[in-house]
Formats: sequence, C-alpha cells, structure tokens
Amino acid sequence: MEFHFSKRISLPFDEVVDKVIAELKKQGFGVASTIDIRETFEKKLNINFRNYVILGACNPRYAYEALLEEDKLGVFLPCNVVVQEHENGEIEVSMVNPEEMIHSTDNLNLRTFATEIKEQLLEVLRNI
Amino acid sequence: MEFHFSKRISLPFDEVVDKVIAELKKQGFGVASTIDIRETFEKKLNINFRNYVILGACNPRYAYEALLEEDKLGVFLPCNVVVQEHENGEIEVSMVNPEEMIHSTDNLNLRTFATEIKEQLLEVLRNI
Repeated sequence: MEFHFSKRISLPFDEVVDKVIAELKKQGFGVASTIDIRETFEKKLNINFRNYVILGACNPRYAYEALLEEDKLGVFLPCNVVVQEHENGEIEVSMVNPEEMIHSTDNLNLRTFATEIKEQLLEVLRNI
Repeated sequence: MEFHFSKRISLPFDEVVDKVIAELKKQGFGVASTIDIRETFEKKLNINFRNYVILGACNPRYAYEALLEEDKLGVFLPCNVVVQEHENGEIEVSMVNPEEMIHSTDNLNLRTFATEIKEQLLEVLRNI
C-alpha cells in the first residue's frame, strides 16, 4: 500500500499552498498545524533548504469520532499534507494515506473513517 | 507491532505536558506543533472533551537526513506525543512508534533512523 498520494503542479509555491488550504476547507478540513521545514532547517541547522511545508489537516468531527474509538489515535493526527518545491521548480503536493497509517488496527469503524478521509483527500488532490 | 508506547502518571496534566517537553528537549527534540484537542472540539464542535494535547516532536537533524532519503517523508513528521487526561484523573503519555509508521519502506537508512528515534522517545517515556 502506498504511504502517500502525490501530484505535481506548475504554479508558484505560495499559490499552491493557498489552493491546498482552500480545497481542504471545502472538504471539511481545517489546518491545525503548519510546519515550515525550510525555516526550521535554516534556524536550527543553518542549512539552506528548498520550500517545504507540512500542513496538518484535521476534520474535527472525524477526529472526535476516531478518538472515541481509540483514545491513543491522536499519535496519528492530524493528516499531513506536504507541499514541496523541487529543483526544477515544480511543486509537489503529497497527502498521507490514512489507510496505511492505521493498517495495524482491526477496528472496522476506524477503517471506515480512514477510507472516507482518504477519498476526501484524493478529491482535494484532484481539485488543485 | 505496537503503534504507540504509553505510560500512565499521577501528576497534574499541565505538569506532565511541561515535563514531556523538557525531556524531549534533553533528547534533542523541539516541539514543532501543539494541537489542543479539547480547545478544538469546544470551538469547532461545541463539545466538552477531557484534556488532550498532541505535541509534534521534531529533531531537525534527523528530519533533514530523513528528507534526503525520501522527499515525501514529511507526511510522517513530526513524531506525535499525546498527553491525555483519563476519567479517573490519571494522565497518559503516548508516543507514536516510528518503526511502525515507516513499516512499508525497505530503505535501511530510514529504518535505522526510526529505530534510533524510537529509543530516544522511549528514554523520554522512562524519564517522565
């Protein structure tokens, strides 16, 4: 099973980030965390890195239902969406595969949630 | 393989959160993101939830080396540490198992990183 779903786009980096956030919102996901990897590496390691942002996408309703099923599921939340700029200037958007994350569980409700969230994330990917 | 490592502690919630952050720091991890689930559920769903915080632990050096190995690994970063309060007042700290997260990869360097990070997270768990 793939651990991610990805798509390459030829648009400016910041524009892609904004578009991802807007499309996530349409599918019911807020952005619960934003980690700017380029900034982090520059500040902590003094290393120049390309544009690379990790957005933590969270649908509060699903998160709530999931935590009622498994109280430690928070170690897998939120669902990360990576936007990165490659050397050739192309922007790649990658979404974690929620089914892959919870592969070890046999809780059928969690599996159903993961599948539904996967479909919504794939819809975001199609729309950007 | 377990998807988490957990420990229950009888101390006030905020004290445990502070202790976790301090011990993570000793092992080289900064906290790259903090998600207050109780606050989120109250604001977005108008639901009262118990104390539940997701801390995103990140060792920038490991993150850098890991991204050189696999540029989409950001979908698994940072390593989440959950601190939650149970009904009986006990506080439980749960760390994601990094080996479990990257179980599908056959990249030996990533596997080595995951094992090293697991050991450091377990050390944090022992010390709190």
